[in-house]
Amino acid sequence: MNTQLIAQIVTQSNAAKAGMRQLSITDRNALLFALADALLANQDGILAANQLDLAEPSLAAVPYSTQQRLTLTASKWQPVIQGLHQLATLPDPLNRTLRHTLLDDGLVLRQHTVPLGTLLVVFEARPDVLPQVVGLALKSGNTLIAKGGQETTHTNRAILSIMQTVWAQFPALHPEWVQLVEGRAIIQDLLQQHEAIDLVIPRGSNAMVQHIMANTRIPVLGHADGICHLVWHASANADNALATVLDAKTHYPAACNALETLLLDATVATHVLPKLDKAAQHKKITLLGCEKTRQLLPHVAPVEHWATEYGDLTLAIKLVDTLDEAMAHIATYGSHHTDGILAEDPAAIDRFVAGVDSANVYVNASTRFADGFRYGLGAEVGISTSRTHARGPVGLDGLVSTRWVLQGRYHTVLPYTGEQAKPFLHQSL
Amino acid sequence: MNTQLIAQIVTQSNAAKAGMRQLSITDRNALLFALADALLANQDGILAANQLDLAEPSLAAVPYSTQQRLTLTASKWQPVIQGLHQLATLPDPLNRTLRHTLLDDGLVLRQHTVPLGTLLVVFEARPDVLPQVVGLALKSGNTLIAKGGQETTHTNRAILSIMQTVWAQFPALHPEWVQLVEGRAIIQDLLQQHEAIDLVIPRGSNAMVQHIMANTRIPVLGHADGICHLVWHASANADNALATVLDAKTHYPAACNALETLLLDATVATHVLPKLDKAAQHKKITLLGCEKTRQLLPHVAPVEHWATEYGDLTLAIKLVDTLDEAMAHIATYGSHHTDGILAEDPAAIDRFVAGVDSANVYVNASTRFADGFRYGLGAEVGISTSRTHARGPVGLDGLVSTRWVLQGRYHTVLPYTGEQAKPFLHQSL
Repeated sequence: MNTQLIAQIVTQSNAAKAGMRQLSITDRNALLFALADALLANQDGILAANQLDLAEPSLAAVPYSTQQRLTLTASKWQPVIQGLHQLATLPDPLNRTLRHTLLDDGLVLRQHTVPLGTLLVVFEARPDVLPQVVGLALKSGNTLIAKGGQETTHTNRAILSIMQTVWAQFPALHPEWVQLVEGRAIIQDLLQQHEAIDLVIPRGSNAMVQHIMANTRIPVLGHADGICHLVWHASANADNALATVLDAKTHYPAACNALETLLLDATVATHVLPKLDKAAQHKKITLLGCEKTRQLLPHVAPVEHWATEYGDLTLAIKLVDTLDEAMAHIATYGSHHTDGILAEDPAAIDRFVAGVDSANVYVNASTRFADGFRYGLGAEVGISTSRTHARGPVGLDGLVSTRWVLQGRYHTVLPYTGEQAKPFLHQSL
Repeated sequence: MNTQLIAQIVTQSNAAKAGMRQLSITDRNALLFALADALLANQDGILAANQLDLAEPSLAAVPYSTQQRLTLTASKWQPVIQGLHQLATLPDPLNRTLRHTLLDDGLVLRQHTVPLGTLLVVFEARPDVLPQVVGLALKSGNTLIAKGGQETTHTNRAILSIMQTVWAQFPALHPEWVQLVEGRAIIQDLLQQHEAIDLVIPRGSNAMVQHIMANTRIPVLGHADGICHLVWHASANADNALATVLDAKTHYPAACNALETLLLDATVATHVLPKLDKAAQHKKITLLGCEKTRQLLPHVAPVEHWATEYGDLTLAIKLVDTLDEAMAHIATYGSHHTDGILAEDPAAIDRFVAGVDSANVYVNASTRFADGFRYGLGAEVGISTSRTHARGPVGLDGLVSTRWVLQGRYHTVLPYTGEQAKPFLHQSL
């Protein structure tokens, strides 16, 4: 471990925390606008740095799709600026009162939101993630340690350097409240700093997320797999159900909320499968199937493993005899991310909603709706499949903690205990 | 690892989950009352089993205070029964709507609370903890794996056996929704089951809590240390401040929210220290002090380390020149549990509240108020010093997760994306 470097990062982050906590919402919003202005004014320099990254000979070997993700353009930069403006207009996630209770005369308890503390964001490839996470950290009053992809080192450094000119204009802000770290080795070390870092947010491949989850005691906000299911119940309207399945599969197959497996009621299979097969050919979807599916569609290849996130235009089909069988399949092979039913029968819908325990449970809707912006959360930190802290699409509320402030008049506990105990009022204010 | 046993525990717990999720609040409350009735009706048998435990020759060697904690009496059993009745009267922590949004015509999103899943509770010594945690798990719809102290094996088994007669009367309930496990080795194995267990709640010594936190990826609800501070500001009313300090130190010194260190404004030290010294002698408090304190009270021994949780009638005193020095001391040596200021000066109070980042921040109140019952939470799961999920005293709300249910009319995402995107309504319902 690079003990000295880690100690320096932790010291700077701790030193920056108090200042961040005390920035007013006016300050934080002004900073977001100033940041947006500076990033727009210096766009040319940032795109030039990105060209330097792209000129690296080693990049010639990476897939075209990765090269595309690494590439910054003016049209990709525009939404980044807009995102910062939008963040500035969102309500303050901090200092929100959750409980306010009169415990007794002159003894008032208030629970309110506070920053989590320090976020560690690890992102691969896309350099436009850096200003986004800086904006989220700023709005929520958290200090940030960010590790970007090695391929965009020049771009990340250029963005950081512009940002630092903005911080310099706000003396109340510790200049190192955002620290950019480089190199894979340091992540391993930072993941051991559970006393200094409060939340890890990985943005990248499943493999990267899984590696991080397996190697830290720090809470991780995110998801490894997105193995999403739709159940096609016998009562579904066939045309509408087909359109929903196609949207869930084709709209953006690489997304975590894209459909991977269709669980089709066997009683409607002879009617549905030919239609689905035709549509799949038209949409260039590769179908895979269970044995029963392959008896009806012999050209379809078998499914190798049901717990697979294809991430492309591949759709696995399983015929099910009962709703229970479908729900058991989801429980066994799903990732508790987004699972839905297509049905008209209210009893079937109720049983599905009651029985499926996923972060997002859908009735007659495409799995692709699982997204913070679509849910109206304003800004999305990520989608969490953890059950503690935050679950499903997570907005700024996932970046805050709480604390309890008790104001008394030198109240002691003794009178409220024992056999003659004075009762508490516990009156909500 | 005892792979077969662990697999069996996990399988039973998973099998019990679906049934637990679907119990209505009426069912859960009826079960709490039935449980209370059975535990009261079979009190004699449980106390007899406890006598068997106490008769173990090995117990002769443990300290008297531990023996006391291991001993069940009718008067200790009474609050357990009452606690179950109280739990039955608390509002349902499940199915509470947190967000309800009309995304577009016919597309309705609802976020509501659901059980966390499976809790692992590890408790030492006190056998009355078992029915308490069973009650909390039941009310919040979670399955439970409980590991009790080895010293009360007979008592725990007797309690479980009574409980199982209650479960047998409710066919909807999986008989193994509560599993009692024995032996230390199994805990090590269970702590690796992060896919099957959603939250660990340790109830016991700091060493036990720290060991668990260091050896699992499962979120841990609790706290290792409770190093609580009071700052005595120059503006404080001396008589009232002294009474508050004495309450915080003496009311229950072994509690995590008891005072360990007093940070006294040096300008009032010559006035305050003699009074405090006299009161300490009267209350049998052992004072320890910094160098400056010892110049004024030469008979006081020096403090060995400020980050010490004495847990007895020992109070460390440090003279501070400024409020900033006091706050820096709390940040360095505290455990972010409960820290307060005794002051009349509003500016000092504001600076302290803004600058101290503890789960509980107090103004003119004894640190002993940090407790779920005193806060009006109804039932206390524990006090968390974690910043994610739940912080401070945690009630039933700390035992729930959330999920998002989206009901549509075969809505697809495509119309809401791209340049001609249909806007969302995002109307709160």
